[in-house]
Amino acid sequence: MPALHPAHATRHRRKSEKKVLRSRHKSIGQPPGSLIHIGEQKVEKTEITAIGYDEKQAVTLSVGNVEECLALKERFKVLWIDVAGLHETGVIEKIGELFGIDPLTLEDILHTGQRPKVEDFERYLYLTLQMLDFNQEHGEVGHEQLSVVVGPGWIITFQERPGDMFDPVRQRIDSPNAKLRKHEADFLAYTLVDAVVDHYFSTLEEIENRIDLLDADLVATFSQESFNALNALKRELIMFRKAVWPLREIIGSISRDDFAVVGDLVEHYFRDVYDHVILVIDTVEVFREIVTSMHETWLAGVNNRMNEIMKFLTMIATIFMPLSFIAGVYGMNFRNMPELNLWWGYYAVLGLMLLIVFGFLKYYRSRKWY
Amino acid sequence: MPALHPAHATRHRRKSEKKVLRSRHKSIGQPPGSLIHIGEQKVEKTEITAIGYDEKQAVTLSVGNVEECLALKERFKVLWIDVAGLHETGVIEKIGELFGIDPLTLEDILHTGQRPKVEDFERYLYLTLQMLDFNQEHGEVGHEQLSVVVGPGWIITFQERPGDMFDPVRQRIDSPNAKLRKHEADFLAYTLVDAVVDHYFSTLEEIENRIDLLDADLVATFSQESFNALNALKRELIMFRKAVWPLREIIGSISRDDFAVVGDLVEHYFRDVYDHVILVIDTVEVFREIVTSMHETWLAGVNNRMNEIMKFLTMIATIFMPLSFIAGVYGMNFRNMPELNLWWGYYAVLGLMLLIVFGFLKYYRSRKWY
Amino acid sequence: MPALHPAHATRHRRKSEKKVLRSRHKSIGQPPGSLIHIGEQKVEKTEITAIGYDEKQAVTLSVGNVEECLALKERFKVLWIDVAGLHETGVIEKIGELFGIDPLTLEDILHTGQRPKVEDFERYLYLTLQMLDFNQEHGEVGHEQLSVVVGPGWIITFQERPGDMFDPVRQRIDSPNAKLRKHEADFLAYTLVDAVVDHYFSTLEEIENRIDLLDADLVATFSQESFNALNALKRELIMFRKAVWPLREIIGSISRDDFAVVGDLVEHYFRDVYDHVILVIDTVEVFREIVTSMHETWLAGVNNRMNEIMKFLTMIATIFMPLSFIAGVYGMNFRNMPELNLWWGYYAVLGLMLLIVFGFLKYYRSRKWY
Amino acid sequence: MPALHPAHATRHRRKSEKKVLRSRHKSIGQPPGSLIHIGEQKVEKTEITAIGYDEKQAVTLSVGNVEECLALKERFKVLWIDVAGLHETGVIEKIGELFGIDPLTLEDILHTGQRPKVEDFERYLYLTLQMLDFNQEHGEVGHEQLSVVVGPGWIITFQERPGDMFDPVRQRIDSPNAKLRKHEADFLAYTLVDAVVDHYFSTLEEIENRIDLLDADLVATFSQESFNALNALKRELIMFRKAVWPLREIIGSISRDDFAVVGDLVEHYFRDVYDHVILVIDTVEVFREIVTSMHETWLAGVNNRMNEIMKFLTMIATIFMPLSFIAGVYGMNFRNMPELNLWWGYYAVLGLMLLIVFGFLKYYRSRKWY
Amino acid sequence: MPALHPAHATRHRRKSEKKVLRSRHKSIGQPPGSLIHIGEQKVEKTEITAIGYDEKQAVTLSVGNVEECLALKERFKVLWIDVAGLHETGVIEKIGELFGIDPLTLEDILHTGQRPKVEDFERYLYLTLQMLDFNQEHGEVGHEQLSVVVGPGWIITFQERPGDMFDPVRQRIDSPNAKLRKHEADFLAYTLVDAVVDHYFSTLEEIENRIDLLDADLVATFSQESFNALNALKRELIMFRKAVWPLREIIGSISRDDFAVVGDLVEHYFRDVYDHVILVIDTVEVFREIVTSMHETWLAGVNNRMNEIMKFLTMIATIFMPLSFIAGVYGMNFRNMPELNLWWGYYAVLGLMLLIVFGFLKYYRSRKWY
Repeated sequence: MPALHPAHATRHRRKSEKKVLRSRHKSIGQPPGSLIHIGEQKVEKTEITAIGYDEKQAVTLSVGNVEECLALKERFKVLWIDVAGLHETGVIEKIGELFGIDPLTLEDILHTGQRPKVEDFERYLYLTLQMLDFNQEHGEVGHEQLSVVVGPGWIITFQERPGDMFDPVRQRIDSPNAKLRKHEADFLAYTLVDAVVDHYFSTLEEIENRIDLLDADLVATFSQESFNALNALKRELIMFRKAVWPLREIIGSISRDDFAVVGDLVEHYFRDVYDHVILVIDTVEVFREIVTSMHETWLAGVNNRMNEIMKFLTMIATIFMPLSFIAGVYGMNFRNMPELNLWWGYYAVLGLMLLIVFGFLKYYRSRKWY
Repeated sequence: MPALHPAHATRHRRKSEKKVLRSRHKSIGQPPGSLIHIGEQKVEKTEITAIGYDEKQAVTLSVGNVEECLALKERFKVLWIDVAGLHETGVIEKIGELFGIDPLTLEDILHTGQRPKVEDFERYLYLTLQMLDFNQEHGEVGHEQLSVVVGPGWIITFQERPGDMFDPVRQRIDSPNAKLRKHEADFLAYTLVDAVVDHYFSTLEEIENRIDLLDADLVATFSQESFNALNALKRELIMFRKAVWPLREIIGSISRDDFAVVGDLVEHYFRDVYDHVILVIDTVEVFREIVTSMHETWLAGVNNRMNEIMKFLTMIATIFMPLSFIAGVYGMNFRNMPELNLWWGYYAVLGLMLLIVFGFLKYYRSRKWY
Repeated sequence: MPALHPAHATRHRRKSEKKVLRSRHKSIGQPPGSLIHIGEQKVEKTEITAIGYDEKQAVTLSVGNVEECLALKERFKVLWIDVAGLHETGVIEKIGELFGIDPLTLEDILHTGQRPKVEDFERYLYLTLQMLDFNQEHGEVGHEQLSVVVGPGWIITFQERPGDMFDPVRQRIDSPNAKLRKHEADFLAYTLVDAVVDHYFSTLEEIENRIDLLDADLVATFSQESFNALNALKRELIMFRKAVWPLREIIGSISRDDFAVVGDLVEHYFRDVYDHVILVIDTVEVFREIVTSMHETWLAGVNNRMNEIMKFLTMIATIFMPLSFIAGVYGMNFRNMPELNLWWGYYAVLGLMLLIVFGFLKYYRSRKWY
Repeated sequence: MPALHPAHATRHRRKSEKKVLRSRHKSIGQPPGSLIHIGEQKVEKTEITAIGYDEKQAVTLSVGNVEECLALKERFKVLWIDVAGLHETGVIEKIGELFGIDPLTLEDILHTGQRPKVEDFERYLYLTLQMLDFNQEHGEVGHEQLSVVVGPGWIITFQERPGDMFDPVRQRIDSPNAKLRKHEADFLAYTLVDAVVDHYFSTLEEIENRIDLLDADLVATFSQESFNALNALKRELIMFRKAVWPLREIIGSISRDDFAVVGDLVEHYFRDVYDHVILVIDTVEVFREIVTSMHETWLAGVNNRMNEIMKFLTMIATIFMPLSFIAGVYGMNFRNMPELNLWWGYYAVLGLMLLIVFGFLKYYRSRKWY
Repeated sequence: MPALHPAHATRHRRKSEKKVLRSRHKSIGQPPGSLIHIGEQKVEKTEITAIGYDEKQAVTLSVGNVEECLALKERFKVLWIDVAGLHETGVIEKIGELFGIDPLTLEDILHTGQRPKVEDFERYLYLTLQMLDFNQEHGEVGHEQLSVVVGPGWIITFQERPGDMFDPVRQRIDSPNAKLRKHEADFLAYTLVDAVVDHYFSTLEEIENRIDLLDADLVATFSQESFNALNALKRELIMFRKAVWPLREIIGSISRDDFAVVGDLVEHYFRDVYDHVILVIDTVEVFREIVTSMHETWLAGVNNRMNEIMKFLTMIATIFMPLSFIAGVYGMNFRNMPELNLWWGYYAVLGLMLLIVFGFLKYYRSRKWY
């Protein structure tokens, strides 16, 4: 079961990976098109996988030398090259040369932390978006940049590290009767983008689970820890929204505008993705409003609890102060205090005290303090 | 009478049905057009009712086999097939085949929790919206997806479970002189959408009743429970708005654009529905502002009550502390304390104490503390 | 003088008339154009007044039978029929027949609580807006629906009850040299709308008076009552805005678009009304911001007052606790307490106590607590 | 030096001049174009100054009879008539006749408290905006309506009272080589509007000075007075924004659209004024955000101070309560209390008390309470 | 290491340089195009550097007399004149004459504190934006105005003081094979703007570092100082946003519109800068939301701490008050108090007291107070 308040995690929350900004020191003052990797190195070696398929067959290759891909490109209707790991800029550059990719595009691929965007270069379409993943242990959303370059008959995807988000797509390519095998590269592009957007729903579901956990926790404790966890979640939602918001425009533009490499049929499918993106954005907004209302509940609870504490203190203090005062009066050492000599004096005072106690209790009951 | 703070309901609030998101696990990685039901199964068996009518007659059939409908389609001017229950995907698929409905449309019908939308497929118009219902016991708004497919001479509606929202429409079909009987299928579509939107008003009225109940309750207690009930209502309004907001665009587009299956007259009627939708949205916004101001009232009340408590404590404490101190002084055991031997010492001290009490009381009165 | 916090009024605030929504039970499931009155019956009998005028003469008639109006229509250049009271649907229907008004328009006239709108039916222009009135006693804004149907040479107005808002217009019609008498029916329409919008300014002035009253009251007391009065006012402003906001679009459209029954000159005058509407909306927004800042003042005042109370309690408690402790020490009964036997012991202790008091007082003075 | 919290000013803040709305009682029910002055009478007598100039000479006249101006109009290239004081409607009406000004324009001139606007009447351009001035003593922004009517070769300005805002313009007219003398009336219009907008910057500078004063004051005291002064400033900024916001559209429209009386060159200069207006609006928004953050600082300070007070009370109370209790125990009169007879009993108890004090102090130190 | 709460800095925060508005006293009432420097004088002497380059060579000159530049202009393909210091208006005027710059442009160059804008004068393009720098010691963002005038074959930049932001650009000009050397002046303009925008990222990174520092500090102390530092940061972000927000429109317009001096290729590169500007604006918004959530954390922490303090006080007070009362009772001097004479009376009372202590402790444990 995931820890709800991973204190150490929260404290070091924004240490390494969680910076909003990725450091751009290396690229400042460089001419445009300089190939410098901005972002963390997340794998040791860049892994390249090439998948070629047409209606009849499908082949998957782990590629050592980039040139090997060219052979596949000619043999199959569709070639998909998946590059995982961006720090070996030489490899990226070579791919760029082989497939005629603009240096500005390569620069965008290497600069992770980009805002999602789509750019049409006639020969190919460049698309970048963020793959999001929810880490239940830290309550954090992981952000990874995905770049997709779609040309006629080929697709190249660039990820920061190998992942399993595209496994269902690979399975569908491998199954002989898949619809996917009958279509062109643009359909594969749609399938990949659809997989990323579908994964947003999984991430949102896990966020909703966390919201439910925190909601239950909130009511039970009203502790500073549960507030901090709530606030951390709020920030994750801010980052989530920042990552998906531009997709509204981007996917909308793909489904509307006439991009050279995207056919009419696939435009139609992208309209479906567009609906999903809108639903994702709506849901993020609803989550933000829910988290805000939980925040208000927390504050109200703390206020209310303070009220309870003060009521309790006030009840005890107001009852015992008069009693102690009376006891104090008869503890005075004046020589002439007639009551002290009455044999029933002590009992009378005890009775008076009881009366006072009942009086106060009745008063508090009438004000519904207990 | 409905319970105001159904504690068990609130606690389990977001358990089953009330998730913002419906789980999409089953559909992730599936090719587009895969017919998988997303959402809860709400009925045991899919119920299909077919109603055929023209100016002269009207027939209602409970359908076992979908093909039976085709006969009706030819006999009557308008055929309305109402499908309640979405888990039997085979049945849905067969209907799709018989009426030439696109697999993507069928997918949308099966994936409940859709954002309302309208799509024009030339041959037919696809429209999906949410039917809302207010459960007074739990203070929750129930959301159910309605899909309407309107073709020339036929309408198919898909609901998650059988409901009585369309009963008045059925009655009007059954009555021989109804205006409805003289019009085409598009008029029936208008009538159904109008019934759904009219029901929004009923739901809003019940929400307003609940607001009034909570308002009265709020002033009386300022308890955490009433705050939680308020907050739960706020979330329901967030969800309500999410459900109706897209209708502004959708109904507006039907009343404006030239959709093949919607005639000019019915467009005119849809303009009326559009006005209602705007009024619904305005009212939801007003309710949200009212709930926000109730929230502020609650906080102000808690703050004020704290003030009252502290004033009371302060009055009691500041009066008795000096008195107890004086008693303490004359309870000291110094050998040489001349006052102790005066015969009127005790009475003088009691008098002094009374003076102090009246002094404080006068001071507090002057500051309007009581 | 109006009561500032009419407790009973506030408590029953949203009982009858003050519902945001008017109940639509009666109309649900009815075919479009069904003439059912939605809203409260505010008069016993529908009163109909007909005023006919041209440059030479003006006649005012209290009408029993609607057909009587037709005679006037032919005799005069302009005929204005004013209908007060909407529950006698038969009368409304007859008027509709005589003047060729669409059933959908009649339905809108009868359904009070409409959003303001304008609709062009070629033969006539239909306009509905809300007449607002401020009730100083309850601090409430009264909302009443006004429907205006403008045809060539005639105007029919429908109000929920007879009112005096149009008295100045009637006086102008009666005065022989009035500019009004020289113009067509569209000019009368402008005059009536202008009267309604001018009345918004009176209502806003009375609201401003109330704001000033509450502002003075706020500073004096910071009571829960003044907060509630403030909050009630806020809700009235929300409702006010809801009522006037759509006018921006409606009046703008009349002054811009070419409606058949509105001449160019009157369009020009409507542009003037448009400026007034914008000023009304701006003013409502400013009032909302002022009320919000008064709300903040209230909260700040309560916080500050709490501070004062706690400072006072703390000063008294921290001074007397050490003193009582010292007295307590010398009230102990140990056999061997040398100080007790010193003849100046008592005086030394009293001196020490005085020193402590002055020390604390100096400390509090240095922290500006008093 | 200006008083920071002018209590009497704040209390009577919204009495006479400071109403958001100017009373419209007099004009309600009047036909359009009725010349009734709405607003306060700010001068005893309307002052009219006429300035005529061309490249060679410039003449300034204090005008008694309006007809005198006509002579100047023919003699000079540009005639500027400045009218200060609006209550003598007869004078205004006569000017209107002489220069052919529409009654609706005259009505707008007389109704002060207008929303800024521009209207093109072909023969002339009508422009109204608000002159703002900051009163350091009351911390209030004074609003005065300026109407400018620009015709070919003449300009008439209407102010509520004589002011010195246009003195630099008059000086430039008087200096023989001024660029201004070489241009037409439209350039003078630009110069006047520019002077008003430049004055906004002075007003904003004075507001910024007040913000700085309040900022310093805030940190020092956290008193209710400083909060009220802050809140009053907030309202002034709301009113300021209301006054300048419409200029964005108005000045933009002058610099863009082809108004008959404004030449291309002057349009260019108006673009410069437009930039200034945007900067003014941006600055007002920044000030509003700064004032909001000061408000939050105040609240945080009050909260924090409460914390300090309660910490102090808690420290004193928790230390002395156990001590007093111990003293109380050994003040009991039981016959059999062995400790009382020990010769070192008293000293032991005093030692125990010291230990308790040090224990608490150490505990509070560890929690950083002091 | 930078100080986190530079108290003196905070106190004098808005003294000299940090005014939102720069004083415009000098320019009020001046005719348009008057060359008056608005803003602080930041250097003693205006420094002018001229850099001429083409593909073969590059020359850098420190210019004493402005005319010297003209020679360079003819010798090289591109001439870049960098002017640092704006108070010597004579120099600026001379440059304006030599390069044919409009007086209105020169006025804008001299009036620092401008809103960023772009203006096309056919012969040249005028662009002004703000260079931002983060001062870690004071936690302040420094704002400096940069004006860029781009003509055919020449660029003139005006800064308020010499800076090192353009050093990487100078280095690239000096290196013989730089791409930069092959392009025209518009490419240099792009390079300079890109350098300024890249620097925004550095500034944002430093702001993020400060946010992290404050975040750590916040959790540790909840002091008023950390709140003030937070609030100061908030204001810096407000100013940052004000400075970069207009760039969205400006850079977008350069990359879209056909400005005479900007070629198609460079337009393409500006599209890249546009993406960066959007990312900068998004990041500022995210930082604002993060700072807001830190603000809420602070408030929640203070509330929570108050709760802790009150719980502690209540526990101590409620335990010792009954005990002291009991001790007080047996300290009374009534003659007839039977318990006093019991030999086990004292021990019984001590036992009772212990029972009470344990009772309360158990109660508080059950409510999770400790």
